[in-house]
Amino acid sequence: MAYELHYWPAIQGRGEFVRLALEEAGADYVDVAREDGIDGLMAGLERPPRPPFAPPYLRDGDLVIGQTAAILLYLGPRLGLVGESEADRIWTHQIQLTLADAVAEAHDSHHPIASALYYEEQKPEAARRAEDFRDNRIPKFLEWLERVLAANPSGPRHLVGDRLSYADLSLFQLVEGLAYAFPRATERALAATPKVIALHRLVASRPRIAAYLASDRRTAFNEDGIFRRYPELDR
Amino acid sequence: MAYELHYWPAIQGRGEFVRLALEEAGADYVDVAREDGIDGLMAGLERPPRPPFAPPYLRDGDLVIGQTAAILLYLGPRLGLVGESEADRIWTHQIQLTLADAVAEAHDSHHPIASALYYEEQKPEAARRAEDFRDNRIPKFLEWLERVLAANPSGPRHLVGDRLSYADLSLFQLVEGLAYAFPRATERALAATPKVIALHRLVASRPRIAAYLASDRRTAFNEDGIFRRYPELDR
Repeated sequence: MAYELHYWPAIQGRGEFVRLALEEAGADYVDVAREDGIDGLMAGLERPPRPPFAPPYLRDGDLVIGQTAAILLYLGPRLGLVGESEADRIWTHQIQLTLADAVAEAHDSHHPIASALYYEEQKPEAARRAEDFRDNRIPKFLEWLERVLAANPSGPRHLVGDRLSYADLSLFQLVEGLAYAFPRATERALAATPKVIALHRLVASRPRIAAYLASDRRTAFNEDGIFRRYPELDR
Repeated sequence: MAYELHYWPAIQGRGEFVRLALEEAGADYVDVAREDGIDGLMAGLERPPRPPFAPPYLRDGDLVIGQTAAILLYLGPRLGLVGESEADRIWTHQIQLTLADAVAEAHDSHHPIASALYYEEQKPEAARRAEDFRDNRIPKFLEWLERVLAANPSGPRHLVGDRLSYADLSLFQLVEGLAYAFPRATERALAATPKVIALHRLVASRPRIAAYLASDRRTAFNEDGIFRRYPELDR
């Protein structure tokens, strides 16, 4: 039976981390709200016995799983996107959670006060938060990823072991998003992280990922998503 | 061999979610930085092959695990603090990740601009963010937890099934922290969530938790931690 991905249809957002895993694995899945609209998406948050807090959530038969990192934890072994050992699995998940922290901070760079307000209602605060994100946080996250790659005993091609994992796919998406939202700051930071650049390229060149990125299933970045290009926030 | 918890010694912070699990289980553990100082804590972030991004991290023999939720994912089965089935485990983890989101938002209520700046350098922005956190986010998180308890087919005593899990312990700690930082807003929100109150009380009355809370191992909340009481931010 096909996996059901439930997420906002018009943005990449957090759902994109799940889409990339499903696409890389060639999994059978339905992007439900893109086919049926968002009424069912919201209704799913009210459905007992285990209502997710927010999209994205995945339905696999009777099981409903929310939280992007939890979805990838569940899918990883099923899609062949994580190592076999418990040590590799928990390390992959730890990296994913750190990538998720970076994503949350990217969101807050344009929404530092409240998700429920428009960017235009929090521009002065966003200018201050984005400055810190650009100057301190983007380099800190990317340099940590570089260190993880450099320290990998199996070599720096992948984050965990010598094989592709969902964390590699998520690193690709984080770099994509940062390069869209903060092209200048991200280019500066990437100058110090050649192994991150190489892994980003390796993921982009995977045949199924390349095909996905060229398809109309890949929504373009836009200013309703998590990664937003507001030129005044980039330096 | 004893578990090693590595975390800032003078605050509850994110480490407290791990401490509560270890204490409830009566596990043999060492709170390393409280005994040896923080030099080793920071050095651990640089140590290959798998350097955590930030404290807390747990060492169990050769394995080092960062990210609070990942630590609990690892400890849950070992400490008997999660159900046996994959469905229960992934649901418990999903709840934990949502609690972690609430904790991150509690932090940002006093640090909406930059972790590296003092509160005093971001007070106007904190006033705005705290207003949204008080009026919208605290109720949203607590009401979701109430809904999860109400929808539990095994009854509303626990978040998952009919047994204590690490998510229950983390709910306790979230409520403790919110009640410390935002006593007025939290009391208002809790008025609508009696099942959350009951679970908070149940955890507090567990013999090992009660003994821990009364011990000097439990640091008091303070204004260096994640949950900070700044009266001007509470209404």
